[in-house]
Amino acid sequence: MAQKKYSIEVIRHSLAHILALSLQRIYGKVLFGVGPVIENGFYYDVQVKKGSITESDLPRIEQEMKKIIRQKLPFSRKRISLTEAKKLFKKLGQKYKLELLRDLEKYGTTVESQKIKIKSKRLKARKIKTVTIYQVGDFIDLCRGPHVKNTKDLPLSFQLRRVSGAYWRGNEKNPMLTRIEGVAFASASELSDYLKKIEEAEKRDHRILGEKLDLFHIDKEIGPGLILWHPKGALIKKIIEDYVLSQYLQNGYLLVNTPHIAQFKLWEISGHAGFYRENMFPPMHLREINPEEKIDYQLKPMNCPFHILIYKKKIRSYRDLPLRYTELGTVYRYERSGTLQGLVRVRGFTQDDAHIWCTGEQLEKEIKDAFFLALKILKHFGFRNFEIYLSTRPKKYIGKLKNWQKSTKALKDALELSGYSYQIDRGGGAFYGPKIDIKIKDALDRAWQCTTIQVDFNLPERFDMVYFDNKGRPQRPIMIHRALLGSLERFMGVLIEHYAGAFPLWLAPIQMLVLPVKEKHLAYAKKITKLLREHHLRVEISKPNETLSKRIREGELQKVPYIIVVGDKEKKNNTIAVRKRGKGDMGTFSVSQFLSKYINKELKDNI
Amino acid sequence: MAQKKYSIEVIRHSLAHILALSLQRIYGKVLFGVGPVIENGFYYDVQVKKGSITESDLPRIEQEMKKIIRQKLPFSRKRISLTEAKKLFKKLGQKYKLELLRDLEKYGTTVESQKIKIKSKRLKARKIKTVTIYQVGDFIDLCRGPHVKNTKDLPLSFQLRRVSGAYWRGNEKNPMLTRIEGVAFASASELSDYLKKIEEAEKRDHRILGEKLDLFHIDKEIGPGLILWHPKGALIKKIIEDYVLSQYLQNGYLLVNTPHIAQFKLWEISGHAGFYRENMFPPMHLREINPEEKIDYQLKPMNCPFHILIYKKKIRSYRDLPLRYTELGTVYRYERSGTLQGLVRVRGFTQDDAHIWCTGEQLEKEIKDAFFLALKILKHFGFRNFEIYLSTRPKKYIGKLKNWQKSTKALKDALELSGYSYQIDRGGGAFYGPKIDIKIKDALDRAWQCTTIQVDFNLPERFDMVYFDNKGRPQRPIMIHRALLGSLERFMGVLIEHYAGAFPLWLAPIQMLVLPVKEKHLAYAKKITKLLREHHLRVEISKPNETLSKRIREGELQKVPYIIVVGDKEKKNNTIAVRKRGKGDMGTFSVSQFLSKYINKELKDNI
Repeated sequence: MAQKKYSIEVIRHSLAHILALSLQRIYGKVLFGVGPVIENGFYYDVQVKKGSITESDLPRIEQEMKKIIRQKLPFSRKRISLTEAKKLFKKLGQKYKLELLRDLEKYGTTVESQKIKIKSKRLKARKIKTVTIYQVGDFIDLCRGPHVKNTKDLPLSFQLRRVSGAYWRGNEKNPMLTRIEGVAFASASELSDYLKKIEEAEKRDHRILGEKLDLFHIDKEIGPGLILWHPKGALIKKIIEDYVLSQYLQNGYLLVNTPHIAQFKLWEISGHAGFYRENMFPPMHLREINPEEKIDYQLKPMNCPFHILIYKKKIRSYRDLPLRYTELGTVYRYERSGTLQGLVRVRGFTQDDAHIWCTGEQLEKEIKDAFFLALKILKHFGFRNFEIYLSTRPKKYIGKLKNWQKSTKALKDALELSGYSYQIDRGGGAFYGPKIDIKIKDALDRAWQCTTIQVDFNLPERFDMVYFDNKGRPQRPIMIHRALLGSLERFMGVLIEHYAGAFPLWLAPIQMLVLPVKEKHLAYAKKITKLLREHHLRVEISKPNETLSKRIREGELQKVPYIIVVGDKEKKNNTIAVRKRGKGDMGTFSVSQFLSKYINKELKDNI
Repeated sequence: MAQKKYSIEVIRHSLAHILALSLQRIYGKVLFGVGPVIENGFYYDVQVKKGSITESDLPRIEQEMKKIIRQKLPFSRKRISLTEAKKLFKKLGQKYKLELLRDLEKYGTTVESQKIKIKSKRLKARKIKTVTIYQVGDFIDLCRGPHVKNTKDLPLSFQLRRVSGAYWRGNEKNPMLTRIEGVAFASASELSDYLKKIEEAEKRDHRILGEKLDLFHIDKEIGPGLILWHPKGALIKKIIEDYVLSQYLQNGYLLVNTPHIAQFKLWEISGHAGFYRENMFPPMHLREINPEEKIDYQLKPMNCPFHILIYKKKIRSYRDLPLRYTELGTVYRYERSGTLQGLVRVRGFTQDDAHIWCTGEQLEKEIKDAFFLALKILKHFGFRNFEIYLSTRPKKYIGKLKNWQKSTKALKDALELSGYSYQIDRGGGAFYGPKIDIKIKDALDRAWQCTTIQVDFNLPERFDMVYFDNKGRPQRPIMIHRALLGSLERFMGVLIEHYAGAFPLWLAPIQMLVLPVKEKHLAYAKKITKLLREHHLRVEISKPNETLSKRIREGELQKVPYIIVVGDKEKKNNTIAVRKRGKGDMGTFSVSQFLSKYINKELKDNI
């Protein structure tokens, strides 16, 4: 196959030009912005003189592109002077290209950020005298290339996928152009794999499933990035919280509970008022409601200072260490509205947070224990594949070099012991200590930041934390921050996508749905429901307001693990007919048979 | 007994004069402020010329008072002209009394608030020409009386209890006087009962016990009225939360979970930005960190608007009602710093909140169910005595009269059915609906506001809440707010005082403490601990770093329900020696005997 000799980037770039040519053929006069290569494909930003382009036009455009490819048109390259280029694009009426040429002349670049840098720092611009232009068919573009030699070198394994609005040069003061995006791969099978993956991801989109399964919503009256958990979502959150908390308590952590606000000065002690300010919500000025009160309050972006103050309330001895405080602490961080996304990027979230204070001798064991507990818990949720990172000392750091080396070794030893492969992010640690990060890989092999185990030499200093050693001398404890699920909101977003909403039995908000065939079976259905609930199962009844098949379908759409149907036969024999999610009819059992044979085992395997 | 003929107020008032006389005898020249009757006693605000009065002086002053009483001195009353009075108190050098006389002359009153009212509204003052003075021994006072005839009519059943500073006339611009406070009762037995109660209350003070039992603290770095729950306190809070939540879920409530902040405009829709503004923390202005964002955010003082938005996310039919959303929602309210008190008056607290939406027909059952659930839960926590109030329609109200009558009847019917007596606070309801309040009475018979069940005709209107009835017509649901424990922080404060920190087994953060007699018994102690923990008991080991008796004492001070001692004999026989809190030695058992005979029963009775 001819296209093999070109890199996929060259192919995608050439397809952008083919897209431009096909638009010109279909719409006549078209103004062109830029048409770069992006991940998995390409786009072109354009402006048509008459009418507009919508997604319904894409098949026609795509067809024209394929026609062009089959026409075996050559790509020609020419180097011309800047003056000639300006003349050419003026003649072509391409005002956006002319703007790019003017920038090249003035700043030696068309990249907006570099242009601003040159302008603001008054740097001397690179002198540009000539430019290259590419032509395919009637379409001429200002372009650095390279391109394929002939359109016959291009594969047909591409697809136009999206039409959206995009401001010229990303600036909202400029006109809005139409962005046409396509994906392209070297072979049809690669394209088909990609499309399948996209389709699967869309089906699993936690924002869509969150609405379909009635789990949560984000409300415009409340504000972006703030989650309202509906009953089923709130129940899953509670099940997760109770599970991780029980794990932590069993592993020697102590539960604490702290407010969501504190006086602003606390964050000056901790240092967050400095280096973390832009991630914090603005403070509340008490003087606005009571002129006598001069104090500012701050919504917490972190739980650490609160836990430190509980530590500091008592005199601590080496006998108290290691001391581990955990809290399901809800924190608020100011993320720019443009960066927010469903549950995975929010402004308010609950952390399964903990802080450990220990001696230098205890550090290694504490890190190992935290790391292995993280793996155990993540596996319990059904994750098997992880990307693990060790971030080490950056150039600017605080704390003793000896402590850095010791801590980094402790982190490394824990990783080695686990048998998992990991990557070292050299110099990628925070200024206050090295850390381990675990990203979980979901069913579609996408990686999500999750666990962090972070050593901190900074806060114990800033808060002057002390314990007395066995000779009565004051010593500084080492501090470890760790969140194993990280943000519960993001973790739940990942869980929804990983399971495509079909949660395992132990996590399912409704574990079983009991369907009486007709009104006359309702009493028996209630009896069965009561019995199952006595075994601490979450069971609901679907009343016979609708046909049985419609209710079964609804239960399946709601991804309920077990649907239990009870009619004449079941009532007479004191049995239940069971349908398992994804498996269909399982047969008829007595409740106790069903529990002992399936449910108890399934729940035990999971807990 | 002679004093029987006088009311306790007259006795207390006369004792204030006796206090004054005794001070004059001991300290020579004393300047007197005022000496009124207060609850349970009396005080006098004074200024001694030389030195100061401290609590160590109280026995001597008290002795002098008793001497005066035994001296059988008469109280004499005289009515004199204002001019004569001014001359007299000038001669006596009593400048504060002269100030009072000037006020009488000018404003016809010595009461500061009335004086201000007359001044500000330019009212005409009552004309005063004469005043009465009382004399006992050498002490002459400007006083309206009445008093006893002779000091022999006064009982000896009083006690001076406190010395504190008090600004003259409560104004901090005036000099600070010394306030000497006493309590007085008609009989020695009444005094002794009162003193016992005070002593008991002090022993039970949740602020003191909170520190002794290491349950919580309020930190000056965080701010007043914000609670940091230490491990044992946080665990009790979690046990309470899980208990009430399981009760609510079993009773048809659905769990929801909502953020602690929302855009300020939400509170404009709800109306809180108007009538509740002064109880809210000031808003956060996003523009302070990002000039592009114009929005203000508000820390939530209530959960209701959030729950309403979840209701409104879907189209609701009559089939969805009654709909009950519950949340352990932490809210923040701005209380003036002077009013804050331990856990019972705070700025941040968790409510066991719920909102019910129902039809008019369902209202009565919903209120009854909520009220009976409240009683069940409060009894479960060990409370038996309640003060119950029904607050009815005020003059200014919103909503239809018919709905007020219907709702008030529903509340009343629930109360009648309960068999508890209740008081009607006529016109004491909120403008938006009638309510039931339950105050719980603790072990010292003190009443604490706890449950509220509040009908609301306002918010469904403001948020335009709708359900469709069985004919497809849109209808307004009725809304009920209910919090059964109210503020969890206050409830825990009351619980601590009610139980004097000796929590029942099901609530105790540490249920059992295992004490190995010596180091060699530690392994056996660990085995026992593990076994007990497998039965979901909260068990800790007290390591043999200290003597056994010291560790037993410490366990008792920490009010642990059961102390388990294991030594040679226990290890050999595979048994445990058990001490029960408040009962002492219970004997020796196998673990399974102990559990089946005592623990399982005790826990079952409680849950």
